[in-house]
Amino acid sequence: MTVSARRSVRRAYEAIERSGRPEVWTTLRTRDEAEAAADLVDEAGEAGANLPLRGLTLAVKDNIDVAGLPTTLGLPAAARVPSADATAVARLTAAGAVVVGKTNMDQFATGLVGTRSPYGAVRGSRLPTLVSGGSSSGSAVAVALGLVDIALGTDTAGSGRVPAALNAIIGVKPTLGTIPTTGMAPACWPYDTITAFARDIETAVAATALMRGPDGIDPGVREAPAGLRLAAPPRPAVAIPAAAGLESLTPDAHRAWDASVERLSRLAEVTVVDIQPLLDAARLLYGGAIVAGRYTAAGGYVEGGAGLDPTVTGIIRSARDVAGWEYVRDRQELDRVKAAALQLLRGADALMLPTAPGHPSLEDVAAEPVAANSWLGTFTNFVNLLDLSAVAVPAGQLGPDGASGDFGVSFVGRPFEDQVVVDIASAFVGARPSPEIGDPGLELAVFGAHLRGQPLNGQLVDAGARFLGEIRTAPEYRLFALATDPPKPGLVPARDGASISGELWRISTAALGTLLGALPAPMTLGPTRLSDGRSVVGFGCTADALTGAHDITATGGWRDYLASLV
Amino acid sequence: MTVSARRSVRRAYEAIERSGRPEVWTTLRTRDEAEAAADLVDEAGEAGANLPLRGLTLAVKDNIDVAGLPTTLGLPAAARVPSADATAVARLTAAGAVVVGKTNMDQFATGLVGTRSPYGAVRGSRLPTLVSGGSSSGSAVAVALGLVDIALGTDTAGSGRVPAALNAIIGVKPTLGTIPTTGMAPACWPYDTITAFARDIETAVAATALMRGPDGIDPGVREAPAGLRLAAPPRPAVAIPAAAGLESLTPDAHRAWDASVERLSRLAEVTVVDIQPLLDAARLLYGGAIVAGRYTAAGGYVEGGAGLDPTVTGIIRSARDVAGWEYVRDRQELDRVKAAALQLLRGADALMLPTAPGHPSLEDVAAEPVAANSWLGTFTNFVNLLDLSAVAVPAGQLGPDGASGDFGVSFVGRPFEDQVVVDIASAFVGARPSPEIGDPGLELAVFGAHLRGQPLNGQLVDAGARFLGEIRTAPEYRLFALATDPPKPGLVPARDGASISGELWRISTAALGTLLGALPAPMTLGPTRLSDGRSVVGFGCTADALTGAHDITATGGWRDYLASLV
Repeated sequence: MTVSARRSVRRAYEAIERSGRPEVWTTLRTRDEAEAAADLVDEAGEAGANLPLRGLTLAVKDNIDVAGLPTTLGLPAAARVPSADATAVARLTAAGAVVVGKTNMDQFATGLVGTRSPYGAVRGSRLPTLVSGGSSSGSAVAVALGLVDIALGTDTAGSGRVPAALNAIIGVKPTLGTIPTTGMAPACWPYDTITAFARDIETAVAATALMRGPDGIDPGVREAPAGLRLAAPPRPAVAIPAAAGLESLTPDAHRAWDASVERLSRLAEVTVVDIQPLLDAARLLYGGAIVAGRYTAAGGYVEGGAGLDPTVTGIIRSARDVAGWEYVRDRQELDRVKAAALQLLRGADALMLPTAPGHPSLEDVAAEPVAANSWLGTFTNFVNLLDLSAVAVPAGQLGPDGASGDFGVSFVGRPFEDQVVVDIASAFVGARPSPEIGDPGLELAVFGAHLRGQPLNGQLVDAGARFLGEIRTAPEYRLFALATDPPKPGLVPARDGASISGELWRISTAALGTLLGALPAPMTLGPTRLSDGRSVVGFGCTADALTGAHDITATGGWRDYLASLV
Repeated sequence: MTVSARRSVRRAYEAIERSGRPEVWTTLRTRDEAEAAADLVDEAGEAGANLPLRGLTLAVKDNIDVAGLPTTLGLPAAARVPSADATAVARLTAAGAVVVGKTNMDQFATGLVGTRSPYGAVRGSRLPTLVSGGSSSGSAVAVALGLVDIALGTDTAGSGRVPAALNAIIGVKPTLGTIPTTGMAPACWPYDTITAFARDIETAVAATALMRGPDGIDPGVREAPAGLRLAAPPRPAVAIPAAAGLESLTPDAHRAWDASVERLSRLAEVTVVDIQPLLDAARLLYGGAIVAGRYTAAGGYVEGGAGLDPTVTGIIRSARDVAGWEYVRDRQELDRVKAAALQLLRGADALMLPTAPGHPSLEDVAAEPVAANSWLGTFTNFVNLLDLSAVAVPAGQLGPDGASGDFGVSFVGRPFEDQVVVDIASAFVGARPSPEIGDPGLELAVFGAHLRGQPLNGQLVDAGARFLGEIRTAPEYRLFALATDPPKPGLVPARDGASISGELWRISTAALGTLLGALPAPMTLGPTRLSDGRSVVGFGCTADALTGAHDITATGGWRDYLASLV
């Protein structure tokens, strides 16, 4: 169903006007401009262009460039009007999204509270006496209030996850170096990434998928490792922190956490791990020398002038005094902790953590601006430092009738295993099928022992292959029960053939190569024509294996054949 | 042919005694100890152990741990006796090499001259009035004089390549993170690697191959990217610097360089590139903030005391004052330059560069200790900063009758493409077949259009597949000329079969998956039994393709069949 971009934009501006939340925005695009952009999208759509985001509105955190709108980093004096969109923005608008404005943020993306801005503290979307979380404060609230469909944030220490939790929306924080940062102002290189917010995981993941991949400009875009898993297993193993790791939670948050663990246990094998190494790593971000990167990014702004946030300025000025040799020392240390973190994930597909330990009020944060901020980042600070991927999802409200705020959990996984994390997060929020983040791979048609429920299916699951659906071959094949022990199916092309049922999976090219390398005779892999006319890699067998084999084409497929034996 | 470790060790000690080069060593192992170690190797060898380095002696640069011998970093006061071997050392001795001692080095591996050591300036191996080069000075000279067969160096800015050039031996500097640095003292993290010296490329590469791969301790060990090329193409494309990039060469070195280019042009397509971006990057190592890492590594030693080299101490003390934010800025800049360097390599399989621009005397270096050192590193400084791999090989002598020293060239390639670089370097020095550095992959048997000289062979070459040799199948196959256009061979298992000729290649698992994904009907890939009984992946075809096909089994193979048609 096609949604008119024009209509969506009109509704967005009406909602923005009604919302009474001017602090969400640093610059709102003029309605005329947005409507003109929407008209172009609608025209292209009517002309048949592929516009998966047509009808969706977009807000952009004010440290990411949108051509023609000022980029302020949360400091009016830093404003600069870029002539080009950030790569991420350009990719979303090319897919049909329409930008309605730039959103407020903790200055220089330094903060998790949403209050550190001369454009005003951003109030919580549901309970305005509470903080919105930050630093992507305006983006999260714009999505939570339904002002826009998608908003871009950035995330170094939790800025794309904490505000997701405190506004009960989805925040996808992909692996560093998967979305180009071209046109994004760094907060603390190389630990920054662009993130996506949406009210449902399908939209957040669709936006993320569109933004990924090299742009030929950002040298920080990384290649995924060989043999990347493209799916979580059907019943994933998810690690959670031992009790000692949860001491920072408020009592309300602890209750919401317990309910989340209960919910998790229905869809995953839950194991308990000691997260102390992760919590220790977090200290390196602000307590150690890594903070030097914040002076590299923003040092030019903090020497004085109007609009500087005093807390942010204090942090960045102190970062000036870090020695280079100390920075190198902490980077080395981080490498060691990273290895330890991967050890901690051993045997698990992901980690579930509280996204934030509670939901403070504006008053709480004003009283203790640094302590409240650090506390909010307890479970997010270390994720980019350790090169992990994460998805933040809502997980209930806090206190009686939700009067104490919102709670969320994050699923945290290995570098590049964003799809595994998305799959587990999707299962947690009840989104089935899980949306795809766009990992490349090859399609593989299976017809026998590799089908779900059959003895060799575990090979596909272990290889991280992704189930795509049931398929049938073109009516050009015959199926044989081979005289092997145990009997295997042999699919062979034949002029007088039939359409044979099977399953289609996606698998990384390296995992497909590995599968081929381990294939036993008489099985083969080669092009197989499907009923929709496409040719994909599929299982077959060598000609000699048909000697003594039993033609079971009439059963229509291996599962039906097995059923017919009973 | 088995060489006795005992005999090799005896000869090594005799040669060391005869050499009159005490400055090569910081600690020589006692002859009794080395002989006892040799006896254990010989015993294990007699008992059938696989000891590829049996009979080879090993010297280890004194920033790499050998259990029981002091590690000094070129500063006696820093001496510390480790209880465990460095991973690299342990792997070589497990393969049968016997350590005879620790070698002299520029202090803290800070220098390319070989003179910056309280253990004495290491003199050039052939012309003792010239420098040996450094910082792996003792290791290079020990190999060049035939005192040992293999020596380990380390390399940050050229320490494993410059002394190879100045002593006319091979220096293999692998991609950072391929050999674990466990037990190696950092010089300027994360830009350090262990390197191997030998008189022939086969031995240097064999040692490198044995040292590679994760040890479960060094968190800096990296995984190779998917689809890694496992071979240089038969006639590689090699870029060389435009004239402007060669202005630092002495006239003698320029003549030797011209001869090298002439030699190169006989085995490669030579293209010319502007290397200015590389030379600019080199300045970041000492002229920028990256030097901060040297204070992290050695700052604890330079505050005073006996044995400190004044030049080294000056460099390291000044590194203390680099700000963290400057370091971050330069690392960011380096990421940009790295991308530019890869652009520069586009279309080329490697770059050939002079290893050093000339061969200074001890006197030259004493006169200008810093300038001479910088000049020596002109073509090596940037290689690790830009994450490139390199192999240094001898390329002639300088001046009349070689009286002005030695010259070498380096082949420099993309990260992880060490094998490509080794293949080109091997061709340059006339070593055929080129030794293997140990990249993993799968064996693939081909029987038709993918054979060398046949139309689809380019697919294998482009995929970086490595030719392993001619093979025959087990006598269990029949070969058909299929009724395809153009005709293709179809290999099918058959009880009344014959042994069919083909070729064996090694290919990365991802490239094999890609090949499979692009396979046209009626071709298949699956297990194929060879005449030696092993089963490898090989080409076959589907049963229906045999309709109308022509049985050509009697010809013995596709090439013979084609020849029979003429």
